[in-house]
Amino acid sequence: MSDSELPEVETPELDELDEDDRLRPEFVRAVLDAVEEGETDAARALVEPLHPADVADLFELTPHEQRAGLAHAVADLLDADVFAEMNDYVREDLIDALTPTEVADLAAELDTDDAVAIIEDMEPEDQREVLRALDPDDRAAIEEALSYPEESAGRLMQRELIAVPEHWTVGDVITYLRGHEELTTDFWEVFVVDPQHKPVGTCALSWILRTPRWVPIADVMSREQTLIPVDMDQEEVALRFQKYALISAAVTDWSGRLVGMITVDDVVHIIQQEAGEDALRLSGAGEGDINQPVRLTVRTRMIWLIVNLGTAMVASSIVGLFQDTIAAFALLAVLMPIVSGMGGNAGTQTLAVVVRALATNQLTSSNTRWMILRELRIAAANGTMLGLLIGAGTYLVFGNADLSIVIATAMLINNVTAGLGGVLVPVTLDKMNVDPAVSSAVFVTTLTDTMGFFSFLGLATLWGLHG
Amino acid sequence: MSDSELPEVETPELDELDEDDRLRPEFVRAVLDAVEEGETDAARALVEPLHPADVADLFELTPHEQRAGLAHAVADLLDADVFAEMNDYVREDLIDALTPTEVADLAAELDTDDAVAIIEDMEPEDQREVLRALDPDDRAAIEEALSYPEESAGRLMQRELIAVPEHWTVGDVITYLRGHEELTTDFWEVFVVDPQHKPVGTCALSWILRTPRWVPIADVMSREQTLIPVDMDQEEVALRFQKYALISAAVTDWSGRLVGMITVDDVVHIIQQEAGEDALRLSGAGEGDINQPVRLTVRTRMIWLIVNLGTAMVASSIVGLFQDTIAAFALLAVLMPIVSGMGGNAGTQTLAVVVRALATNQLTSSNTRWMILRELRIAAANGTMLGLLIGAGTYLVFGNADLSIVIATAMLINNVTAGLGGVLVPVTLDKMNVDPAVSSAVFVTTLTDTMGFFSFLGLATLWGLHG
Repeated sequence: MSDSELPEVETPELDELDEDDRLRPEFVRAVLDAVEEGETDAARALVEPLHPADVADLFELTPHEQRAGLAHAVADLLDADVFAEMNDYVREDLIDALTPTEVADLAAELDTDDAVAIIEDMEPEDQREVLRALDPDDRAAIEEALSYPEESAGRLMQRELIAVPEHWTVGDVITYLRGHEELTTDFWEVFVVDPQHKPVGTCALSWILRTPRWVPIADVMSREQTLIPVDMDQEEVALRFQKYALISAAVTDWSGRLVGMITVDDVVHIIQQEAGEDALRLSGAGEGDINQPVRLTVRTRMIWLIVNLGTAMVASSIVGLFQDTIAAFALLAVLMPIVSGMGGNAGTQTLAVVVRALATNQLTSSNTRWMILRELRIAAANGTMLGLLIGAGTYLVFGNADLSIVIATAMLINNVTAGLGGVLVPVTLDKMNVDPAVSSAVFVTTLTDTMGFFSFLGLATLWGLHG
Repeated sequence: MSDSELPEVETPELDELDEDDRLRPEFVRAVLDAVEEGETDAARALVEPLHPADVADLFELTPHEQRAGLAHAVADLLDADVFAEMNDYVREDLIDALTPTEVADLAAELDTDDAVAIIEDMEPEDQREVLRALDPDDRAAIEEALSYPEESAGRLMQRELIAVPEHWTVGDVITYLRGHEELTTDFWEVFVVDPQHKPVGTCALSWILRTPRWVPIADVMSREQTLIPVDMDQEEVALRFQKYALISAAVTDWSGRLVGMITVDDVVHIIQQEAGEDALRLSGAGEGDINQPVRLTVRTRMIWLIVNLGTAMVASSIVGLFQDTIAAFALLAVLMPIVSGMGGNAGTQTLAVVVRALATNQLTSSNTRWMILRELRIAAANGTMLGLLIGAGTYLVFGNADLSIVIATAMLINNVTAGLGGVLVPVTLDKMNVDPAVSSAVFVTTLTDTMGFFSFLGLATLWGLHG
């Protein structure tokens, strides 16, 4: 980025970062070289000006073998904020090298949600040791968080929040905030609760600041609140934050009492992750984390590939039915992958759109029928066009009108099949509460491969095509 | 959702929504039936309790033909907040039905960023008319926003923000906020500026509330700020918000002066959109909006399909080289799609992971070499395993040892090709500043199809396989 574009950045890391906020490779190399040569002070001097998020990035960009050395060199810069920003696998790598007391010291510095993120993936025995080393309040908070299901609001929330009674004035709230040093500073809204500690309203800090001290908080707060049940799945939490443009939200237990708060910065990661997962799941690449141990990645991908091998064999058995036709006219074998492949492409397009629309609640039972008709129209249009193109091309190259009619018809049939399957498969899986992103692709490509081979070779056989 | 899970929601729309915050199909139908039968009051009564985000959803779930009728029935509920939440295409649909003065009334109610979102897609002539109908201040703000490139920070920012001079105390800031009714209430941080209106620090409202009135604001503010240049691309803005966990950020012009503010709720949409786009782009489904006019969708997808038709023909011409081999041994045609297809699957996995890692700045030049080696190891492991499986399967079914060695070897070769191509293609495109999500898939599948056919049929020919 040129100076004219970013003239006033006050953060000191400008030189270490490129124009996309990524650490420059030369910088990473300089740090790792210094560590390797035992020049700890030089390494520390380089790392010290970095923002915690960039220190976390540095560890992520460091090869596994060199991470412990780097951690040793810059140990005092490795604070809780850095761990909170770090990729799960990289963090586990480092946490493994620390003693339970060191982990407990880190966890005590953090808000509950970040502390839980560090502790939840540890071995049960190590986890117990860390919990023992924590002071009783922190331990109770973390133990309770761990009692909620993984990926639920209970794991995501922090217990540090500001809750005030209904009868207070704006002035009472300000005096309370000024008078209690131990309160969190990481909040954007104040929750107003009744005597049972049930939330009755939310008040953005800007309203408190803009209102005279004598006004009752109950007159300033918004009674329309979006509450998050403690057992809600994090994906639903993220959708709710997004839909209602929330900055923070109160989390309530089964009895409706306020037990925690989720802030938007914790949700942003989830939104990004969940939205990005579609492409990975559709391809069967699992969570697709590049820091995952290779063995685990191989296993995840292998399962998917073996399932696909099975379906590829089903599709190829369709070709097997037509071996005699192919032996008599080998050109059919040359052209058949075009029909199946184009169906696969069209099906994948529809699938990607439908999976996305389902994930963002844009496609519901209210408009499923409309969506099916929409995709059929698109498939008919594209299928006709592609059929005409491939038909004309085949006629021009091979001068065989029968062959060109057969391939054009098969192309249209397979495109319509792809469009229909691309909607029906994910919608059906979604209704059965199966994640459509994970399982749809294999059904749809099996369908388009099978139908592609069957329609093309079947029509060719019926038509009596031969070389 | 059962009552025990969500007992205390104060928002009135519970009955209209299902457990995933989606409007129930019965509710949508009830509203549209009322509109159809001219029972405007009944329709209004149903829609009135909805949150603006849900009114927007209702319009999105309504078929195109019925939207104007619905808009007419609930015209007074269609306020600026609803339009701000609405899908672009659906909004255009409705805006087209309004007069420029009505659009100007809507735009005047909104923050700059939302007003710009409504106006930017209008025809130039309509746009001019709307701008003329706005009062001079609003017009100037919107015209300036429109002068920035599409999808830049300048379009995304709002000009309504709180900026205070460095020499003020906390008390001065509070008095200023209480004394000026016309100021925005939609802010989470206060920006501290020098006499040239350049930002020197940021102060979260919680700090202001927790600090005694006499303390200078300069002592409370954070001098480490993350500033956004006005011409920064919105995707970069989103990454920066996410990386540094920002709630709001100051936007500066080329001279470093504060010109606007971006808040996280505007960025959340972009994060979700950009992350979700990968799956759509990899499949060539464009932006994949289900509300896009069908004609536009057909065109977007068709372009991609025609490119793929071209590459499918290239791959099939490889098969054409081996027609004699196939005519002599048609079983090869049965098995060849397995080799090419499995390479395609493995390549797509690697591709999805690499595209994601590039988009989230996890894969940079610092770790490209490591990533290539990582994917090669995975490909070798999976290729060996799949080769053994298909080799054994082929031997069991067809009892032909030569054939099984050939297919196993081809499978390994194609998997390694897929792993290598899956990294090198997107990384190279990214270096060339081409979006790897858009263009990688076509290269990688061409590669795996071609190499699949070539290695399998080539080895079979060399080996002298025959039926």
